[in-house]
Amino acid sequence: MHYRLYYWNGIQGRGEFVRLALEDAGADYVDVVREQGDAAMDAFLTGRAIGLRPFAAPFLEAGGQVVAQVAAILHFLGPRLDLVPDDAPRQLQALQLQLTIADLVTEVHDSHHPIASAAYYEDQKDAAARRAADLRRHRLPKFLGYFEAVLAQAGGVHALGRHSYVDLSLFQLLRGLDYAYPDAMASLSPTLPGLRALEARIAERPNIAAYLASTRRLPFNTQGIFRHYPELDGAIVPDED
Amino acid sequence: MHYRLYYWNGIQGRGEFVRLALEDAGADYVDVVREQGDAAMDAFLTGRAIGLRPFAAPFLEAGGQVVAQVAAILHFLGPRLDLVPDDAPRQLQALQLQLTIADLVTEVHDSHHPIASAAYYEDQKDAAARRAADLRRHRLPKFLGYFEAVLAQAGGVHALGRHSYVDLSLFQLLRGLDYAYPDAMASLSPTLPGLRALEARIAERPNIAAYLASTRRLPFNTQGIFRHYPELDGAIVPDED
Repeated sequence: MHYRLYYWNGIQGRGEFVRLALEDAGADYVDVVREQGDAAMDAFLTGRAIGLRPFAAPFLEAGGQVVAQVAAILHFLGPRLDLVPDDAPRQLQALQLQLTIADLVTEVHDSHHPIASAAYYEDQKDAAARRAADLRRHRLPKFLGYFEAVLAQAGGVHALGRHSYVDLSLFQLLRGLDYAYPDAMASLSPTLPGLRALEARIAERPNIAAYLASTRRLPFNTQGIFRHYPELDGAIVPDED
Repeated sequence: MHYRLYYWNGIQGRGEFVRLALEDAGADYVDVVREQGDAAMDAFLTGRAIGLRPFAAPFLEAGGQVVAQVAAILHFLGPRLDLVPDDAPRQLQALQLQLTIADLVTEVHDSHHPIASAAYYEDQKDAAARRAADLRRHRLPKFLGYFEAVLAQAGGVHALGRHSYVDLSLFQLLRGLDYAYPDAMASLSPTLPGLRALEARIAERPNIAAYLASTRRLPFNTQGIFRHYPELDGAIVPDED
């Protein structure tokens, strides 16, 4: 099947979770906006194109179907790209874990935009400093500790007992957090041996290694979801509260 | 099938989206925490119970399977309770729409807790006032306008062309917003004729009407996700910016 991915140009953003799945599977896909510009999304986002109108990018077009929301896209792609177990119960587990990853991604976004997603960071820096402090002290340890425990519960190698899009998304989550919050992640890493080993294994998968070395993999930057603002980062001191 | 729902006592919260599906379908279910207390969730949330460990409530236990994340729970329940179309493409559309509802629910939550979900509202009131203003002016019109358009695109009666859990969730979304932001919703309602008619039809469904009149339907309150703080509400003036 041929896939057409639509997502904002210039950033990894939420689209990257879909790209990693397509790249890992060696899927036949086009990153439409990178070839045609943002305007290629207009007809979809305004409801003039085929399919259910997406609320926002990323969305995927495949076989006459349009799917939006990262977790729904990956739920759709999983069986087609052999990136989930065959059985429905574990496909549901993959969805559940991806949704929990998405929750953390939203919290990371809100750590630099706690007031208004359409306003400048510079206009919400004070609130961002407070939210980022809470993210570092409470939310990152809670979420990442959860994923570490789930990985251990599943045997330590794969979140779902075999390779899946969830493993790819956990890789992306760690890479994004390492970029945005290097000091906080340096504090947490000793508590995340399973996730760190998973990250290293994913990076060595041939298709992923080739993708990461290509110009298709954009660098992280301060227009994306994971943003590095040094004033928001900091080591996590256990008795900081 | 027998269903066991686990969610915090005393609030509608995110659990209510699952309750409405179970109630509408007349499903055989137990609201476990209301019978046994919050401690009934401990074994699941700490990974000592069966199934994939949930990150947070609500979660559902059914047939030896444990499912967390509202959208995943409803994706699981939909076919079993006849609350989605039969075909996979439209089940995926239901998931996509539910995830977009969930995104707005998170933004509503963050309008009273923009800094830290574990801290008191009183300690983040200034940031909440700014975030709530953005929610009223920009986010509510954008999200609700989207759902109104999707409903119109589907024929105006059901979001997916037939009754589904998405319609139930849109009902709950409107009721929650009417409680939390009555002035803002009074401003927006004239632009939402389809959603308002849908809301009225859902309220008249026999099982829903019986549920809403029962003691099982807890009133909205300022411990839940939809919270009414008068200082956060306000009419939406088009040229406010």
